[in-house]
Amino acid sequence: MNVKEYMAELGQQARVASRDIAKADTGIKNRALLAMADAIDASREKLVAANAEDLQQCRANGLDDAMLDRLELKQSQIDTMIEGLRQVAALPDPIGAITDMNYLPSGIQVGKMRVPLGVVGIIYESRPNVTVEAASLCLKSGNATILRGGSEAIHSNAAVAECIQTGLRVAGLPEHTVQVVKTTDREAVGELITMPEYVDVIVPRGGKSLIERVSRDAKVAVIKHLDGICHVYIDEDADKTKAVNVAINAKTHRYGTCNTMETLLVHESRAAEILPELAECYQAIGVELRGCDKTREVLPNIIAATEEDWQTEYLAPILSIRVVHDMAEAIEHINQYGSHHTDAIITENYTRSRSFLREVDSSSVMVNASTRFADGFEYGLGAEIGISTDKIHARGPVGLEGLTSQKYVVLGDGHIRQ
Amino acid sequence: MNVKEYMAELGQQARVASRDIAKADTGIKNRALLAMADAIDASREKLVAANAEDLQQCRANGLDDAMLDRLELKQSQIDTMIEGLRQVAALPDPIGAITDMNYLPSGIQVGKMRVPLGVVGIIYESRPNVTVEAASLCLKSGNATILRGGSEAIHSNAAVAECIQTGLRVAGLPEHTVQVVKTTDREAVGELITMPEYVDVIVPRGGKSLIERVSRDAKVAVIKHLDGICHVYIDEDADKTKAVNVAINAKTHRYGTCNTMETLLVHESRAAEILPELAECYQAIGVELRGCDKTREVLPNIIAATEEDWQTEYLAPILSIRVVHDMAEAIEHINQYGSHHTDAIITENYTRSRSFLREVDSSSVMVNASTRFADGFEYGLGAEIGISTDKIHARGPVGLEGLTSQKYVVLGDGHIRQ
Repeated sequence: MNVKEYMAELGQQARVASRDIAKADTGIKNRALLAMADAIDASREKLVAANAEDLQQCRANGLDDAMLDRLELKQSQIDTMIEGLRQVAALPDPIGAITDMNYLPSGIQVGKMRVPLGVVGIIYESRPNVTVEAASLCLKSGNATILRGGSEAIHSNAAVAECIQTGLRVAGLPEHTVQVVKTTDREAVGELITMPEYVDVIVPRGGKSLIERVSRDAKVAVIKHLDGICHVYIDEDADKTKAVNVAINAKTHRYGTCNTMETLLVHESRAAEILPELAECYQAIGVELRGCDKTREVLPNIIAATEEDWQTEYLAPILSIRVVHDMAEAIEHINQYGSHHTDAIITENYTRSRSFLREVDSSSVMVNASTRFADGFEYGLGAEIGISTDKIHARGPVGLEGLTSQKYVVLGDGHIRQ
Repeated sequence: MNVKEYMAELGQQARVASRDIAKADTGIKNRALLAMADAIDASREKLVAANAEDLQQCRANGLDDAMLDRLELKQSQIDTMIEGLRQVAALPDPIGAITDMNYLPSGIQVGKMRVPLGVVGIIYESRPNVTVEAASLCLKSGNATILRGGSEAIHSNAAVAECIQTGLRVAGLPEHTVQVVKTTDREAVGELITMPEYVDVIVPRGGKSLIERVSRDAKVAVIKHLDGICHVYIDEDADKTKAVNVAINAKTHRYGTCNTMETLLVHESRAAEILPELAECYQAIGVELRGCDKTREVLPNIIAATEEDWQTEYLAPILSIRVVHDMAEAIEHINQYGSHHTDAIITENYTRSRSFLREVDSSSVMVNASTRFADGFEYGLGAEIGISTDKIHARGPVGLEGLTSQKYVVLGDGHIRQ
């Protein structure tokens, strides 16, 4: 197979299909989504069988248990896929919405209409449920999609793709609205990210090395998520109960997520009062603590944090702690070492809460809330294609709107420019 | 001079300054803008003298008259620069605006706050007035700026930069908020567009070759404008007077602008009635017409349009005309040959006006209005840094908002995720 030609063909087909799906009625898109859900429900056995093939091959190739776990398509995950499709069908359709329609001095009326981006390329690793999540969000937002899953999940993805095709067919939408790349050749990724004539945006979902490679080599826009080095700052005027609750939740609710706190900052006037109680909680749960010199004056038994700790996304039960002189020092630390993802202040002070919100340069900035809330569902977006740590186009959790653009709509009555 | 080190130094300084300008009060930013206007007003002689040096050098280098004309800083242009600064000062400040603040089921309150992009790099050709326009829009939107003007205007730009520095000083803003690249080495552009650690977005303003080079080589986002191949489609149900007025205005109001019509599409049922009158007007003004076969049945004296004509941005008194069977054919032509810039339909038909607005994939889509309206001022943006033909981040005329992003703001009362 000539991968270059194959990918160009997928691209051309997606471009053509994108014109039809861009103007498809909301009802038709919803019908496709619900039919996909039904098709998946009716194909449980086929999906599990295809997944078993992938699992067998991966076991034979000696993949580790964590990888196999992510690859396995359990019945509960099939339920989630079905539920997800129904939820996306129930979301309001962003496409065609016209806003800010105003009359201007010349007499013309000008507003903005929300439109699809066109063709979205999704590159993801082994989890086969991403196939359905990504396809459904792109479809609802009127985009054509090219999906490139991990080679480990090739049979699972193909089986899911068949259900997607059934849904498109039932609704009378073009089959090329959603295409799954059928080759495992790594060159396919290189092609997908360098066809600006056919692909408008790439969403890579996976480990850091994948995202770095895609960002470096892509010739089209990339909606990407890099590190999540999140902070909680316990201010001088923090309520102690809130501080402890949020600090425990932000670290221990889940360790492997990007919105988990990795560094705790504490105002020097509160360190002696709050840190011992917190340390007891953390240690009871099994979180390893690493502290700056001032932290270790209060918690002498923990190890010293190094410069590297402040820059590390542990994704593990490890927490670095730094005692700061004031909020300015906390903000400086966050803007210097953080990844501009999600950072929170715990305070009852009105003025400092306003300054923190304004001055911390992160995609989510919080007052008296756990960083774990940084999530498309929790923010009411209904669904999430990813979290963007960029400032261009989309920032923070990206829902349907992040897969759209806006065009200007101008209405006149024969108006000409003077 | 080591250009790489020099540009990195500018970049670092811009990054540091961007933190201060991001949190600067609206009043302080406005004071800087007004002080810049005063400084320019007080420096008219200096500006003209510096510009004379550039003009002399360019004449010695044999530059053509069109180039010299664009380079010359006339008193009226100095007036425009001053007026522009005052207008930008009068615009509402987008930064810090919080929208869509809602309570969610978990009890947290989530909204979006508008924030600066950070550091904006502007690359432009000889027109020295761009220095002030770009700097003022970036400043008002809370960004630090690195300006790289054409080498032909190096003295003019330096003189303008001094006035900008005066304004920053008066307002107490850091001098590195606006920096003008002082070397004419072309390598400086290569550096500026490949420093994602220091520069967040590049806005190239100039000819097609500049924009293509920047787009190809940039390692950061580019807000860019490529071709403007704009269409007017005269529908079956067009009002004849509106059709003639708009078609004449869209082509002849100005020839060299990107929102000028380059191809006229006419429904076959109206060609015999409307084209002869239009042709008479165009020929009286000196516009050369090129037509498809059906057009030439009505206008036998004009030359034949080739495939290349449909793809050409003439920027000149030339117009290609095509007679189409129906609106679907017109839309197909526009989406295939157009540049997704600005396209208009002339019709009294309700249903077709709705379809045209929805289905034409351009940054501005119009009904019964001249394409010449596609402009930041006409759209009420107050000012314009450029017109984007991309769909990512900004589309169509880009004002202050296109130089900003939004971050999520989350307010809680000690909320933790369950």
